[in-house]
Amino acid sequence: LEHPDTGQLPALIARWHPALIADAVEALPRDMRHTLWDRLDAIDRGQVLIEVGRGVRQQLIDEAAQDELLAALATLEMDELADLDADLPVSVLDAMVRAMDVQRRERYERVKRYPDDTAGGLMDVDAAAVRGDVSLKAVLRYLRQVRKRDGKLPEHMDSLVVVDRQNRYLGMLRLSDLVSHKSTAIVSHLMDAEAPAIQVGTPDTRVARLFEDRDLMSAAVVDDDGHLLGRITIDDVVDVMRAEADGEVMRRAGLGEDTDMFAPVLSNAARRAVWLGVNLINAFVAAWVIGLFEASIDQVVALAVLMPVVASMGGVAGNQTLTLVTRAIALDQIGRGNAMALLFREVASGLLNGAFWAIVVAVVATAWFGNTQLGIVFGCALLINLITGATAGTLVPLLLERLGIDPALAGGVLLTAATDVVGFFSFLGLATLFLL
Amino acid sequence: LEHPDTGQLPALIARWHPALIADAVEALPRDMRHTLWDRLDAIDRGQVLIEVGRGVRQQLIDEAAQDELLAALATLEMDELADLDADLPVSVLDAMVRAMDVQRRERYERVKRYPDDTAGGLMDVDAAAVRGDVSLKAVLRYLRQVRKRDGKLPEHMDSLVVVDRQNRYLGMLRLSDLVSHKSTAIVSHLMDAEAPAIQVGTPDTRVARLFEDRDLMSAAVVDDDGHLLGRITIDDVVDVMRAEADGEVMRRAGLGEDTDMFAPVLSNAARRAVWLGVNLINAFVAAWVIGLFEASIDQVVALAVLMPVVASMGGVAGNQTLTLVTRAIALDQIGRGNAMALLFREVASGLLNGAFWAIVVAVVATAWFGNTQLGIVFGCALLINLITGATAGTLVPLLLERLGIDPALAGGVLLTAATDVVGFFSFLGLATLFLL
Repeated sequence: LEHPDTGQLPALIARWHPALIADAVEALPRDMRHTLWDRLDAIDRGQVLIEVGRGVRQQLIDEAAQDELLAALATLEMDELADLDADLPVSVLDAMVRAMDVQRRERYERVKRYPDDTAGGLMDVDAAAVRGDVSLKAVLRYLRQVRKRDGKLPEHMDSLVVVDRQNRYLGMLRLSDLVSHKSTAIVSHLMDAEAPAIQVGTPDTRVARLFEDRDLMSAAVVDDDGHLLGRITIDDVVDVMRAEADGEVMRRAGLGEDTDMFAPVLSNAARRAVWLGVNLINAFVAAWVIGLFEASIDQVVALAVLMPVVASMGGVAGNQTLTLVTRAIALDQIGRGNAMALLFREVASGLLNGAFWAIVVAVVATAWFGNTQLGIVFGCALLINLITGATAGTLVPLLLERLGIDPALAGGVLLTAATDVVGFFSFLGLATLFLL
Repeated sequence: LEHPDTGQLPALIARWHPALIADAVEALPRDMRHTLWDRLDAIDRGQVLIEVGRGVRQQLIDEAAQDELLAALATLEMDELADLDADLPVSVLDAMVRAMDVQRRERYERVKRYPDDTAGGLMDVDAAAVRGDVSLKAVLRYLRQVRKRDGKLPEHMDSLVVVDRQNRYLGMLRLSDLVSHKSTAIVSHLMDAEAPAIQVGTPDTRVARLFEDRDLMSAAVVDDDGHLLGRITIDDVVDVMRAEADGEVMRRAGLGEDTDMFAPVLSNAARRAVWLGVNLINAFVAAWVIGLFEASIDQVVALAVLMPVVASMGGVAGNQTLTLVTRAIALDQIGRGNAMALLFREVASGLLNGAFWAIVVAVVATAWFGNTQLGIVFGCALLINLITGATAGTLVPLLLERLGIDPALAGGVLLTAATDVVGFFSFLGLATLFLL
């Protein structure tokens, strides 16, 4: 994208793979995106709508003509459609459903029954299922029929779901087993009965973890009674994983999940203002603590020079612990049994680092201001604040998790509040006691 | 893991799926891990070695008997073995290679030729390849032979690689096409010739991006002349994606890629000490800037109370921009063409938020200290520092990227240095000019 101002570019991009086009759309300034959109066909437009972030998608939808949108939407699979229909205007949504044939409408309504962030929202309803008591020959005949009827088989098929007469899940039949065994063999003898089925209400992040841990390519989705509802394939799960990974980094910076690099400046600024406001409250609480010791600072100005060092080091140390613990919580590696052991370890680590760096800063401060007592107080405060960082870094995310609040979103703010307040209070407090 | 101190636990865990066992091993305190290891069979031990983080793996390897290790290693696939052999002691490595049969040794040496973090390191060398000019019937016969010979087909097979007589890549034949077409059809007519092949030297993160963008389940790996070398399946790619996502969060906190929650306290503290040291230099530079204005603070103590607010708000705003730009760089969405447009947008956003919050803090400070001039200086400094945050947040990661340094690792430190120095300097500098 070296020269996006040349008119040739959109024509070139339009020949790329949709995923690359979507990247290009996101990288283009807002006013150039429509030019590119105009050059795409309906299939590419549909895929681009799926691949771009939510902010960019909203812009494309707002600026597209209704018939362009309907043509693009008609090219999408059910689970794709279910991912973006929340962003469509009601008029387009109505027109889209009206244009569907009976079969497509019925499948669309089945997918819509489940929240987007559950296994039900991820699944594809056109799972190719076979009965357990039939022969491989019958399976092959069935697959040829499906191809004849639909013109194609479901995408990304590595296995078939095996069910009983009541459509209850039994296991998975790998295509590689289907093609390499005698055609007289019976499905239920060859299927993998250990392959896990996923409850329709399972959160999507847990589905992702299961796919990752068990190296799955696809899995069946079932209701509470074990009846087959659909199928999840790994390509959908990969998208969840990417969103999850991006999301954590973005939430830590208070940016939210979907960020258009070229969102309108005003809405962009407004979204960030909230986070800045939260942090401003934090900063003023710290300022208030400093204000309590105005008289001490008035007498020893060096305190003002050194105090940000204490606060910032506590924040950095605390953030290391916070990151580690937040990750462990996300991986379900922390429970009541080991939380205490973890806290002790983090505090011990903070104590060691605190002792080491306390000596370093005490020497530096003594040399700088020629005041040994100031150096000792400085070192002690640093020690206290590194231990505070380790403690808060462990307890804050555990507490937030218990309260059902995302540690990645609120953890950093609360941690900084703790290390700032304790940092300033311990340094200025100790100084007031021993230096004045 | 509610009561890891009961002796029953390891026996229970040993019956789980290896991925869950690995999670449990990581969650257990170090001294209990060996007890669990003792209860596992060779297959589970092999899988656990693959699944745990590097620190934990090192502990397990150090504590295991050599024959236990050899038995576990013998159960692993080639690409798995290649992932962990760097962590094995030379004596074990030698014994392992000596114990291999000729075929396994030859395949091991082929995999070892390529770095771990490239397509060559990810690939499986036992790709099932078929010629393009044969019929489906011949393919089915070949697959039955492979099953007879090896007792199984390669894992996670959704497609077969199609090659010509010189073993050059032609395309992929989906198993779903294989099973649903007439057995007289010719492979090259049914194969997907558009399916991308991956050059053996491609970095693993780029492989992950390709799989994600193109919704691939598997892909062929080729040398520079297009000769087939192996096959990458999505389950390996998912591991790369997870490591990449975890890595970014961990590197931002200066924690490195592999962090054992229960690493020995001493080595844990030592690893973090480096990061604290880097940040300490940062903090002392900021302290030095404050020191330049000691005389001013001596006259107006309120400056000391308010100055951390300016620094911290600049840091928070800058971190938002930094996070956004770092992500866009990782997604290849920023080039020379749009970097300038992005910078303008971020600065404009910083200007808007700066103006808004400047007014808020000016009012608060005026009310607090009864000094309008102080309030105005405070607000101006905040405005300057939010713009600094936006500028540094954009330019720092772009510059680091140009220099070949990972923005996730060094970006935060440099950004904080900028916003601290500018924050303290602008506030105390303006105050010295206009208040004294």
